[in-house]
Amino acid sequence: MAKPKKTPRPKAITPKGFRDYFGTEVTERKHMLDQIAEVYHHYGFEALETSAVETVEALGKFLPDVDRPNEGVFAWQEDDSDWVALRYDMTAPLARVAAQYRQDLPSPYRRFAMGPVWRNEKPGPGRFRQFYQCDADTVGAPSVAADAEICAMLSDTLEAVGIKRGDYIIRVNNRKVLDGVLESIGLSEDLLRNPRPMSVSEAADALYAEMVRRNIEKISQADVLRQIDKFDKVHEAGVRELLTDGRKDDSGAFIDGVGLPLDAANKVIEFLTSKAETNEETLSRLEAAVADSKTGLEGVDELRQIADLLNTQGYGPDRIVIDPAVVRGLGYYTGPVYEAELTFEVTDEKGRVREFGSVAGGGRYDDLVKRFTGQAVPATGMSIGVDRLLAALRATKRIGSEEAGPVVVTVMDKARMGDYMQMVTELRQAGIRSEVYLGNPKNFGNQLKYADKRNSPVAIIQGGDEAEKGVVQIKDLILGAKIAQDATLEEWKDRPNQYEVPRDEMVAKVREIIESYQ
Amino acid sequence: MAKPKKTPRPKAITPKGFRDYFGTEVTERKHMLDQIAEVYHHYGFEALETSAVETVEALGKFLPDVDRPNEGVFAWQEDDSDWVALRYDMTAPLARVAAQYRQDLPSPYRRFAMGPVWRNEKPGPGRFRQFYQCDADTVGAPSVAADAEICAMLSDTLEAVGIKRGDYIIRVNNRKVLDGVLESIGLSEDLLRNPRPMSVSEAADALYAEMVRRNIEKISQADVLRQIDKFDKVHEAGVRELLTDGRKDDSGAFIDGVGLPLDAANKVIEFLTSKAETNEETLSRLEAAVADSKTGLEGVDELRQIADLLNTQGYGPDRIVIDPAVVRGLGYYTGPVYEAELTFEVTDEKGRVREFGSVAGGGRYDDLVKRFTGQAVPATGMSIGVDRLLAALRATKRIGSEEAGPVVVTVMDKARMGDYMQMVTELRQAGIRSEVYLGNPKNFGNQLKYADKRNSPVAIIQGGDEAEKGVVQIKDLILGAKIAQDATLEEWKDRPNQYEVPRDEMVAKVREIIESYQ
Repeated sequence: MAKPKKTPRPKAITPKGFRDYFGTEVTERKHMLDQIAEVYHHYGFEALETSAVETVEALGKFLPDVDRPNEGVFAWQEDDSDWVALRYDMTAPLARVAAQYRQDLPSPYRRFAMGPVWRNEKPGPGRFRQFYQCDADTVGAPSVAADAEICAMLSDTLEAVGIKRGDYIIRVNNRKVLDGVLESIGLSEDLLRNPRPMSVSEAADALYAEMVRRNIEKISQADVLRQIDKFDKVHEAGVRELLTDGRKDDSGAFIDGVGLPLDAANKVIEFLTSKAETNEETLSRLEAAVADSKTGLEGVDELRQIADLLNTQGYGPDRIVIDPAVVRGLGYYTGPVYEAELTFEVTDEKGRVREFGSVAGGGRYDDLVKRFTGQAVPATGMSIGVDRLLAALRATKRIGSEEAGPVVVTVMDKARMGDYMQMVTELRQAGIRSEVYLGNPKNFGNQLKYADKRNSPVAIIQGGDEAEKGVVQIKDLILGAKIAQDATLEEWKDRPNQYEVPRDEMVAKVREIIESYQ
Repeated sequence: MAKPKKTPRPKAITPKGFRDYFGTEVTERKHMLDQIAEVYHHYGFEALETSAVETVEALGKFLPDVDRPNEGVFAWQEDDSDWVALRYDMTAPLARVAAQYRQDLPSPYRRFAMGPVWRNEKPGPGRFRQFYQCDADTVGAPSVAADAEICAMLSDTLEAVGIKRGDYIIRVNNRKVLDGVLESIGLSEDLLRNPRPMSVSEAADALYAEMVRRNIEKISQADVLRQIDKFDKVHEAGVRELLTDGRKDDSGAFIDGVGLPLDAANKVIEFLTSKAETNEETLSRLEAAVADSKTGLEGVDELRQIADLLNTQGYGPDRIVIDPAVVRGLGYYTGPVYEAELTFEVTDEKGRVREFGSVAGGGRYDDLVKRFTGQAVPATGMSIGVDRLLAALRATKRIGSEEAGPVVVTVMDKARMGDYMQMVTELRQAGIRSEVYLGNPKNFGNQLKYADKRNSPVAIIQGGDEAEKGVVQIKDLILGAKIAQDATLEEWKDRPNQYEVPRDEMVAKVREIIESYQ
C-alpha cells in the first residue's frame, strides 16, 4: 500500500523583509506617536486614518503596464479585475481623500496621519518593507505662512519627543530659487541640440554653443537635479564633476557628466553652498545667484517671509535656518523644502563617528489633487521617519531601558489557585501590575526563571506553612536578580532580600519595594 | 494629425469595502485602544506587533490550491513565487510567533495585539474589509486559571472603556461538555452507516438503528455543531428541527436536518438550555447531561473551577456566568469558551428594539503551535471587536460628542501675518489649541465659515484699527454658532458675544471663554 503523503509542516517565519516588534519596541513607538499627535493636534491638525489598501489608479505612479504592477508596491488584482495595492506613503492617500471629500472638508484642511506604509523593495540590513510614517500636511493654503507653520511644528515636535534644542537643525530651501539659478545659466527648460532652440537669453546661447562644441544631444533639468541630489554624498567637488565632464565613483565606474560648462556648474555649486553666517546674508547671496529670474526672486522672497515669520515667533536660526544645501526632494517639490537633521554624533555600525542626520522632511507640492480633479490645490507638509527618530532616542539613551515586568505570584500548591488569584486581584486593584504563574507549577525553579525573564521586580511565595501562619514570602528580585537560577526554595528563603510579612500587609510591602526603586 | 490620447483622470475613491476615518472617529478609537491596552498590560500581558503581511503557508487554512489563493484573504504572489497575504486575524500571527520564537519567549507567554485585520469578503452595509481587532492570549498555560483570568480581564476591560456593570454579561461554556453530551447520545465520533460501526454504547446502537430506519448515510459531529451554531438565530424549536428532520427557513427554502432521533436532539437542546438560577444548579444539570462521559465530566469540572476562581476574586454571576447557550466558536475551541454581551437595548436600523449583543469572545484552543512544531501547546485568549464596542459606546452616548476645534485667528491684513502667527504662538504656549486662517483671506465670510466648520470655540480678529489701538476682537463662537454665515465684519463687531480686549489680555480672555464651557 502506498504511504499516505504527509503535508510538510509550515515554516514559522516572517515573510522576507518584514519583522515583529515585541513589548517596549511597541510601547515606546506608541508613546512617541502619542507625543507627536499631541503637538499636531495642538496646532489645529485633525486625525485621518485611511485604509491600508488603495486602488492602484488612485495611488498613481505605479499604474499597471504589465501583468503585475508590483514595481515598488504590493499590488494584486481583485476578483472583479480592479488592481489594488498597499499604500507606499501617506501623501497619495491624502491626495485621494482631498479630492474625494473636497466638498465636505474644511479648507484649508490640516490633517495628520500615522501608521505603517509598505514598499515592495529589496530588503536590506535595517531596511524593512513595512515601516511607520507620521505625516502632517496643510491642503489648500497658498501662503508660505503654512510652510513656516510646518517648520515651527516640526521644531516643537522634535523637542516634545525628547530631542534637545541644539541637537537638531531644520534647514529650509526653495525649489523656485534653484529654478532661478537654472534660468540664470540658460536652462529654464530642457535644451536640445536638434532642433536648435530659439534664443531666450545670452546664457542659453552660451550653453548651446557648449553643447555643440562638446557634441552633446540634450541637457535636461532633471539630469541636473539628479546630480545635485548627490550633494550630501559626493560634496562640492563631486557634484562639480558630475555637472560637467563626469566622475569616477568609489567602485571605479565612470558616471557620465551632464555637460554643463564649468562656469555654469560653478553657479549651481555656488547656490548649494551659499549658506552664510546669517539668514539675511544667505538671502542676499541667493538674490545675486538668481540674477533677474522672476521665479528665482519669488523663491528668495518666500524664503525671506518664512525666516521673518519664524523669527517673529521666536524660532531663530539656532532651530530653523535658510540653507540652500538642502537638496533632498528638490526634484519633487514645487516651492519651499525643509529637512530636520539631528546634529549630535553617533558611532555607526562600522565604528565611524558621524552626525546622526535626517529624521524628517517635507515641502510644498501644488499638484496634489490636480491628478484627480484637474484643479491645482496648493499643499505643504512633512513626514517624520518614526523608526529613525526612535533609533536616535535610543542612541542617546533617552529611551530603551528595560521595562519592569509584573509582580509574579508563584504557585506552591495547585489546589490553592484561588488564593493566589486573590493575591493578584488585590495587587492589581492597588495599581500594581501583577500576575499568577500559569505554567506547570511543579518545578519551582522554572517559576523563578520565568519571573527573571519577565524582569519582575518582586515574586510572592506562599506554601502550605505560610498559608497556615497567615503570612507570605516577598522576594525582592531586583536585589536578587543575579542569583543562581537553580536555587531551591530553601536557599531562596535564606536570602536577606526576602521578607516574611502577614498576608494582609502583602500589598503595602510590595509597594514599598517597588517604590524604593523608582 | 491624430489627437494625442489623453489619459483619463483617476477616480478619487476608496476601494470597495474599505473606508476612511476622520478626526474623532480616529481619536475615539485610539483612546479606547489605549484604555484596553492599559488593562491588558496591568494583567502582565506584553505588546506584540507583527507585520500586516504573512506567508500564506504560515497563515494556514487558506493554502493556495488554485491559481490565486485569495478565498477569504487578500493574497498575492511575490516575485520569487512565494505567496503572501494580509493577516485575517491576530491569532494566526500569534501562532507563527509562538513557534518561531519559542526558545526566547517567556512561558507562559501573555501577549496582546491590536490593529487592523483584512478579510476578502463581500462587503455589506456596516461590514468592511478592514477592521480592528484587539486580542489578548496566554500561550503555554494548561490551567483553567488562565481561562478564568481572561474572563476577569474582559470584565475589567469592558468597565474600563465605559460599559457599566449590569450592562454586560460574560457567559462561559465548555466544548468538552458538549463532547460529553454528544457521547451520551452515541455520537462520540462521526457515524457512518457503511461500514457498520463497532458498537461502542447503547446510545450509539440506537443512533445507528435510526440511521438505518431513515436511510441516512452519515451523521457527523460537524453537522451537529453547525446547527447548534444557529441557536442564537433560530432558537430552541428551530435547532430541534435542524437536528432532526429539517426546517423551512424564512425564505421558504428547506434546510435538511441532521437526522438525529428526537430524544437525542432533545438531549442536545437540554444542554443548550441548561442555564439555571445559580452556577451550582447549572453545573448539576450539566453533570446529569453528560452522564458518565469522562470528557464531559472533565468539562463540567473545568467550568466549576472557573466559577470558583472568579467567585473568589469577586467576579460573581452578575458579571461572569456559566451558560451553555454560548455556542459561537464551539466548533473551533477545544475547552472553555466565553463571550461578552452587552445587555442594554438599542433600536436597530429597522426600528426594532433589541439587545446590543456580542462584543467580544474567545476560548481555549490547544493546537495553536502544533501545526508548526508538531508539539501541542495549550493556549487561551479573546478578541474584542473594537468597532462593535465603539458603536455600543456611541449608542449609549458615552462617546461621540463633537470635539471642540481650534481657536482661529483670522487674517485681516495679509502683510501682518507675522502678528497673527505671534498670536497663535502665545495661545499654543498657553496650552490652547489654535491656528491662523491659512486660506485666501480676501473673503472674511469664508474665514468665519471655516471656523464654523472646524467647530471653533473662539475667533480672533485684528484689523488695522485694532492693531493701532493695541486691541483685538474676541468672538465667542459657541454663543454665536448659529449666526448667519454671510454676516459682514461690521455686523459681527456689533454682536454682544464679541469682546474688545487689550492685545496683552488676549490669552486670558480666550481662556476665560473656553473654560466657561467646560
